[in-house]
Amino acid sequence: MVEKPRDMAAKSENFSEWYLEILRNAELLDDRYNVKGFYIMRPWLMEIVDKLYTLLEAELKRTGHGKVLFPTLIPEENFQKESEHVEGFIPEVFWVTHGGENEFERKLALRPTSETAFYSIFPLWIRSHEDLPLKTFQSCTVFRHETKATKPLIRAREFIWIEAHNAFTDEAGAIGQAKEDIEITSKIFGLLNLPSLFFKRPDWDKFKGAVSSFAADTILPDGKRLQLATTHYLGQNFSKAFNIKFSDKDEKEKLVHQTCYGPGISRIAAAIISIHSDDFGLVLPFSIAPIQIVIVPILKKGREEEIKNYCKGLQDKLGLYRSLIDSKSESVGSKFYKWEIKGVPVRIEVGLKEVEEGKATVFRRDKKEKETIDSGKLERKVKEIEADMEKELERRAKEYFESRISEAKTIDELKEKVEAGFVKVPFCSRDMGGEGCAEAIKEIAEVGGTIYPEEERPIGEKCIVCGKLAEEFVYCCRSY
Amino acid sequence: MVEKPRDMAAKSENFSEWYLEILRNAELLDDRYNVKGFYIMRPWLMEIVDKLYTLLEAELKRTGHGKVLFPTLIPEENFQKESEHVEGFIPEVFWVTHGGENEFERKLALRPTSETAFYSIFPLWIRSHEDLPLKTFQSCTVFRHETKATKPLIRAREFIWIEAHNAFTDEAGAIGQAKEDIEITSKIFGLLNLPSLFFKRPDWDKFKGAVSSFAADTILPDGKRLQLATTHYLGQNFSKAFNIKFSDKDEKEKLVHQTCYGPGISRIAAAIISIHSDDFGLVLPFSIAPIQIVIVPILKKGREEEIKNYCKGLQDKLGLYRSLIDSKSESVGSKFYKWEIKGVPVRIEVGLKEVEEGKATVFRRDKKEKETIDSGKLERKVKEIEADMEKELERRAKEYFESRISEAKTIDELKEKVEAGFVKVPFCSRDMGGEGCAEAIKEIAEVGGTIYPEEERPIGEKCIVCGKLAEEFVYCCRSY
Repeated sequence: MVEKPRDMAAKSENFSEWYLEILRNAELLDDRYNVKGFYIMRPWLMEIVDKLYTLLEAELKRTGHGKVLFPTLIPEENFQKESEHVEGFIPEVFWVTHGGENEFERKLALRPTSETAFYSIFPLWIRSHEDLPLKTFQSCTVFRHETKATKPLIRAREFIWIEAHNAFTDEAGAIGQAKEDIEITSKIFGLLNLPSLFFKRPDWDKFKGAVSSFAADTILPDGKRLQLATTHYLGQNFSKAFNIKFSDKDEKEKLVHQTCYGPGISRIAAAIISIHSDDFGLVLPFSIAPIQIVIVPILKKGREEEIKNYCKGLQDKLGLYRSLIDSKSESVGSKFYKWEIKGVPVRIEVGLKEVEEGKATVFRRDKKEKETIDSGKLERKVKEIEADMEKELERRAKEYFESRISEAKTIDELKEKVEAGFVKVPFCSRDMGGEGCAEAIKEIAEVGGTIYPEEERPIGEKCIVCGKLAEEFVYCCRSY
Repeated sequence: MVEKPRDMAAKSENFSEWYLEILRNAELLDDRYNVKGFYIMRPWLMEIVDKLYTLLEAELKRTGHGKVLFPTLIPEENFQKESEHVEGFIPEVFWVTHGGENEFERKLALRPTSETAFYSIFPLWIRSHEDLPLKTFQSCTVFRHETKATKPLIRAREFIWIEAHNAFTDEAGAIGQAKEDIEITSKIFGLLNLPSLFFKRPDWDKFKGAVSSFAADTILPDGKRLQLATTHYLGQNFSKAFNIKFSDKDEKEKLVHQTCYGPGISRIAAAIISIHSDDFGLVLPFSIAPIQIVIVPILKKGREEEIKNYCKGLQDKLGLYRSLIDSKSESVGSKFYKWEIKGVPVRIEVGLKEVEEGKATVFRRDKKEKETIDSGKLERKVKEIEADMEKELERRAKEYFESRISEAKTIDELKEKVEAGFVKVPFCSRDMGGEGCAEAIKEIAEVGGTIYPEEERPIGEKCIVCGKLAEEFVYCCRSY
């Protein structure tokens, strides 16, 4: 009864095309803005984005973070203070050089990330150990003049995220924060049934300025890794550069230990869209669907009011859900088509037959199953579907993700399996030349890192590249 | 028992200093960032800001606006399309000229306002009359390289606002929207007890590119006008420039009529802070107070647990309120001081006496009155205070604002009275040389406009400047 959307690419055959079409057809995003790499987020996406922000901000506040908002512009001199950081980010900074007709004496960066804004102020907020831990975050857009190919929500030149910036009296506090960040990420991804692995990045692929970097990565249907969130232990690198000191209980002046955390809202949205959806369009979990239930009246001439009133009666029974009666003048078929592409979890169809028999026809988006039930059982039915859809999306995501993780013992095997996603391989450590080995296979795959918290280490196995005794298992992948 | 804050300026004596001190001492904002005119919003302010956003966004969605997010960067060529608009905004645009080492071929503006971003895409979203009205908004920061003196939240080089951009089939639809914008503004300001007047701006002071501009203005305690929100009827000026057409029911191609609306979140926050607060700090309405009730235990050695448990019991009775038990190790005096400066509406003090007698001592911030009541009556008491504080703030705001509006018939009278706020004067119309008359008194005051919807017109009175027969009453003021 519902046709497969005309002219839409199949997700399994051409993910890239399918992805762009779903963004357009579900009215999530417009990619026709006249600056390359910049996109327009439309209401259906913004509703999802705001729900993601609400979930993440609530977790950050619950764990003691204060929400702040720093300026978008950062003076060049702030960047210069931490040498690795400046080296890492300067190549992709957008620079503001003029105000009206006046050229500035110093350039101002559009924040690519805000360490050098926050940490220029932290010395003013931190005096003693009583001011610590200092936990802050902001929700904002950041700007990176990417040289790689851009793709909406996945790699854009302006994207939305949260960045948390924290300071602690000691290393233990900071490491504890990195763990808390990982817990927050896992909790939220769990709610969204978004499968991911947490990696400790190899030393050569850390955030510039960090002591160690941890990242939650997923795999998109084209087999490429997408980094969704990162947390970095910064040690005292930035506190040295920005002179962020506190007087400790022993009355000595000490440098703070720091962390930063960045869940990428755009990318989390991209992953939800890419992983849960199918060839008919979006499939959205109840938790973030802008509309959870759409009621479509199938009008019969002369009986319109009766049918509409019956729909209102049904809607009243669903008071706690975000619901909509679609009374527009479009055809019923195009309404079905539209709400399926937009991923509304439940559709209720009401024709004269339903009205006369006191029934409702309930369609669930994930399984595309339809059932006619007594209207008195409607609320219970929707609750049932909600719970079952949760399980179904979890099951699918698990099945999907497991099929994207494999193991290899040889380069040839790696080459073949890495098309699908992560490949776990034995690897030498950095000290033994890991960076060189990573470099040697970069045409095939990159090294995503070791699982964090650490999983088992190889015993007696050999590095897949150099053949020396392997010290760890790393996960290789192709990457966005 | 609570001292007047040490070293704080009095609001009535030195508003400017009082205002900066309240921003710092209530930990609302940090003005020590190293780029002039850019400020850091701290958690206490961000909680208020988010509540203002929630209120306004809900109204916009209720009235059919879809939330979107456009890029921060706008190419120079977009600005060039509407000649008045470009002339008005170009002098204060921040320009992005480089990405990394590369100089761009065309400059990109940091949006000072987003007409020229939205309207470049509207032709893609609008085909037929069925796509109209198109109602959209975004919540974002905008950037203006102000040449006037900057002041946190009042005149900053980056500030937060909402901008709504709408398109209609005809003038009536667009004018209806301007009226709806005014209603939304009035409703929200009513909730916040924020006094304001709605003006139709004189022609020479319209938004650049608009047919007519309407603005909600308040008066700050220093007697200066602060524009809080504007709505503009753009006619077909931008639809001509950006070729935004639709095919109407008669199958003819027509240009849309447009409006835009911009409530300034930063300025609304500034007005709430400035108008409601007193020499002891912030006074916040229940509706936007980040914490509505703070419970301060006054501990007695050996009885700490008992007192703390009693506090928890009281908090449980206040479940629907945003409450906090302040168990920090600071002195009771400094806690009182802190929460008063931060404007928490109700403070509950719990000492051993309260515990033993089953009482609670309740302090309300606005009137600074304190009362000891039975703990069983606590919830009812708080509700009473909430309702009464609402009335009290309304009464004060009304009294305050009425004292800031006067009338004058001569220039001398205007000069004297304009120190306090708005002065209503008879004025010639534009056709009769109004712009010249406005120019003639600009050292004394500017012309804010006529009340909208229109109030009575002068009968037989003479223009306060040129002495010709007055055609309207205008409100003069000094202005931010």
